[in-house]
Amino acid sequence: MAAPADFLSYVDTHKDQFIQRLAEAVEIPSISGDPDRRDDVVRMAKYLDSQLQAYGVETKPVDLGPHIMDGHHLQLPPAILGRIGNDPSKKTVLIYGHFDVQPAELSDGWSYPPFKLTHDEKTGRLYGRGSSDDKGPVLGWVNVLEAHHALQTPLPVNLRFCFEGMEESGSDGLDKLILEEVKKGKESWFDGVDCVCISDNYWLNTRTPALTYGLRGITYYKLVIAGPAKDLHSGVFGRMVHEPMTDLIALMSKLVDPQGNILVPGVDAMVPPADAEETALYTNLDYSIDDVEVSAGAKIALSDDKASVLMGRMRSPSLSLHGIEGAFYGAGAKTVIPAKVAGKFSIRLVPPQTPENVDPLVIKYLEEEFKKLGSKNTFSVESLHGGKPWVENHKHWSYEAARRATEAIYKQTPDYTREGGSIPVTLTFAEALGVNVLLLPMGRGDDGAHSTNEKLDISNYIEGTKLLGTYLYEVAAGTKA
Amino acid sequence: MAAPADFLSYVDTHKDQFIQRLAEAVEIPSISGDPDRRDDVVRMAKYLDSQLQAYGVETKPVDLGPHIMDGHHLQLPPAILGRIGNDPSKKTVLIYGHFDVQPAELSDGWSYPPFKLTHDEKTGRLYGRGSSDDKGPVLGWVNVLEAHHALQTPLPVNLRFCFEGMEESGSDGLDKLILEEVKKGKESWFDGVDCVCISDNYWLNTRTPALTYGLRGITYYKLVIAGPAKDLHSGVFGRMVHEPMTDLIALMSKLVDPQGNILVPGVDAMVPPADAEETALYTNLDYSIDDVEVSAGAKIALSDDKASVLMGRMRSPSLSLHGIEGAFYGAGAKTVIPAKVAGKFSIRLVPPQTPENVDPLVIKYLEEEFKKLGSKNTFSVESLHGGKPWVENHKHWSYEAARRATEAIYKQTPDYTREGGSIPVTLTFAEALGVNVLLLPMGRGDDGAHSTNEKLDISNYIEGTKLLGTYLYEVAAGTKA
Repeated sequence: MAAPADFLSYVDTHKDQFIQRLAEAVEIPSISGDPDRRDDVVRMAKYLDSQLQAYGVETKPVDLGPHIMDGHHLQLPPAILGRIGNDPSKKTVLIYGHFDVQPAELSDGWSYPPFKLTHDEKTGRLYGRGSSDDKGPVLGWVNVLEAHHALQTPLPVNLRFCFEGMEESGSDGLDKLILEEVKKGKESWFDGVDCVCISDNYWLNTRTPALTYGLRGITYYKLVIAGPAKDLHSGVFGRMVHEPMTDLIALMSKLVDPQGNILVPGVDAMVPPADAEETALYTNLDYSIDDVEVSAGAKIALSDDKASVLMGRMRSPSLSLHGIEGAFYGAGAKTVIPAKVAGKFSIRLVPPQTPENVDPLVIKYLEEEFKKLGSKNTFSVESLHGGKPWVENHKHWSYEAARRATEAIYKQTPDYTREGGSIPVTLTFAEALGVNVLLLPMGRGDDGAHSTNEKLDISNYIEGTKLLGTYLYEVAAGTKA
Repeated sequence: MAAPADFLSYVDTHKDQFIQRLAEAVEIPSISGDPDRRDDVVRMAKYLDSQLQAYGVETKPVDLGPHIMDGHHLQLPPAILGRIGNDPSKKTVLIYGHFDVQPAELSDGWSYPPFKLTHDEKTGRLYGRGSSDDKGPVLGWVNVLEAHHALQTPLPVNLRFCFEGMEESGSDGLDKLILEEVKKGKESWFDGVDCVCISDNYWLNTRTPALTYGLRGITYYKLVIAGPAKDLHSGVFGRMVHEPMTDLIALMSKLVDPQGNILVPGVDAMVPPADAEETALYTNLDYSIDDVEVSAGAKIALSDDKASVLMGRMRSPSLSLHGIEGAFYGAGAKTVIPAKVAGKFSIRLVPPQTPENVDPLVIKYLEEEFKKLGSKNTFSVESLHGGKPWVENHKHWSYEAARRATEAIYKQTPDYTREGGSIPVTLTFAEALGVNVLLLPMGRGDDGAHSTNEKLDISNYIEGTKLLGTYLYEVAAGTKA
């Protein structure tokens, strides 16, 4: 079922108003990670709440309680639940998004004021913090609601909304809200949800729309070597004592090789190699080695083979060494023997890996390697946090609906992608509701979500609004198929 | 020639006045590394200048010009040159010391106010910043001058003084002063100097006086691996690109093993092994594995063999890994792929090693090892600074004089030690003047020179004053021998 022509033309004719809506939202600096901006996050919640209500959505702000951030005792910004439509003959789609943003200062290197939406006429881009992550997509849904409200057209599905204001700061309180809401059964605002749609990631490139069906998990380690009671002078103690840094560097060097192979026995081996059919999925993605090197800013791809590089990100685990706590890190030349040093590294996980089955391999291996060093220093390793990977059935009717919607709006078959990073709420929804979750990105791979000069192309905002609306019609069509 | 009995008894009977002198000096917080304390360093210079003059020393404050510290444009504190005695039949001894101190705050963990001399009656210790490093030894010389002045006894040698106020901050301006002064020939305040005596280090332990005849040199490296144009997200880029941290850790792991052996080919090999006679020197030192482990605060000595551990510090090179600039160093769990990382490490040098003959070995080795990694990141390595090692002839008449003085005052044969660290001015004096340099420590190994609760035992201050005076008499005796 294609979207009605009057919906699509309403979106085109209201382009300026929709951009104005995004401008209003960007002007609210709803930085969840800055205690001084907490009032702005709450103001943004109210703004979104009033927009939803204006187009017929019943809403419920949910108090998520207090928390502590950087030593400040704060109230969490409310989550906004919403519902519109209760027709048992229609599918029910739950929409998730977030209205908080990453920090941004002009002095970080922005070419535009980050909290004022700047329309670059030449490039057709809208610059501003949150334009792409995630105010644009959230307001895309509001645009869809406005169009149907104005046209007095009933929505093709029942909609439920869950919008939060803490996504950029660990989604404090959200898992609890979801789990408690689900427990309410018939009274739950999530009752009867058939699928979840999240628009909070990006196309792989700048050309091809994407549907995302997988995310890597993570397990993050802290490896501690301690020796002397205090930092020592390398002139006085050098070659008299076992130095913790020597041991730590030796151990960290045994984790991953310069080609990205994980050296912890059994970890890479847990993931079966891709067969020809799966490899073809990656070969067929609209992506090039040049794309990765442009986004990294240097010619440092691990391979010249596109499928191999893409599989490295999407269907392989990866181990990154992030840094060392407790060692000298400043400029200049300090001649210290650090007393206690902690190496930080993490492994991105793919099925069937979980923190539970990977952590013991890593810990056992490091214990054995430490023993081999013959050092008198002390050793410990712990996992600081972890999260499971997520891979969805991308042949589900929700994905099929999204594919048809993409083909209708963009005249392109979407890339089916898996992301290398994590969006933890995805797994929470999948597990708590037991339904299919679709990641349906609006923005492009070069939007610079957490970086300076974040932008959303106007075409992505407007065609993306059409895509979201059309997806709902295709979901409805799928119901009848 | 023993020191006259009236000199020795003057020191004993004036103990309280000498402690009072140290108290006055400690109360001036002459922290050379703190721009806000520069006036106090100058005040300390004037205090010392007036003390020297009071006992008949002709002085000359030398303006060392301007410098920049932490962005502050400052005038360097003056150095104080001094001279007393011009008898061509006597030896001329040049004394070096410094009147600036390390920073100290009660909040660093001091049990006593750092800038008030606290006399602990129970332990016989004098607590205060600078008590041991280096105001105690400098005032030890002033005490010797006072005694001779009061007793109207001529000094047994001609004395020259060079006192500076920037030792704790890199001795800015001092090398230039020394080299320019030497060039003046007959007009030089250093003209006719027969030997140099520096009292600015410590006994090896808390029991045995020491004469120090060697210092290690140093060469300090910065090893840089750069890849992406900016920090990357490990979820997005992990296993797509060569990560600079992986390469850096691999290279740093190839520099030194956990037993302290330097893995750069040729570096350890430059130093011939000790023969039985030399090994015996270390075996005979009054020192134990327990001493090193008590001062390190943990049982982490590289060996159970005392001579081997002491040679590691005194006559072997050592390589220490100090840290990494550019990587994640905070608490917590940041999932960054750092774009550019710089490993900091240094090698302490012993003869015949110099920065000039060691640097090429290190650089060539790292270049070769980097090539083996097969990485597309970029590599560079540079030496940030370096200094040659120094080993003196410890059978010279100045050392013999110091040995006899030690035996006279302490009734002990001194330990002959080499220090693991550097006192760069030592080498400057040795090279510029071409005379023997003696390090004649006043304080003990547990004085905590750069640490909290710095102290000088009263016995070391008083017996040390006698030692310095007696050394001058023994030098004079040596002249006649």
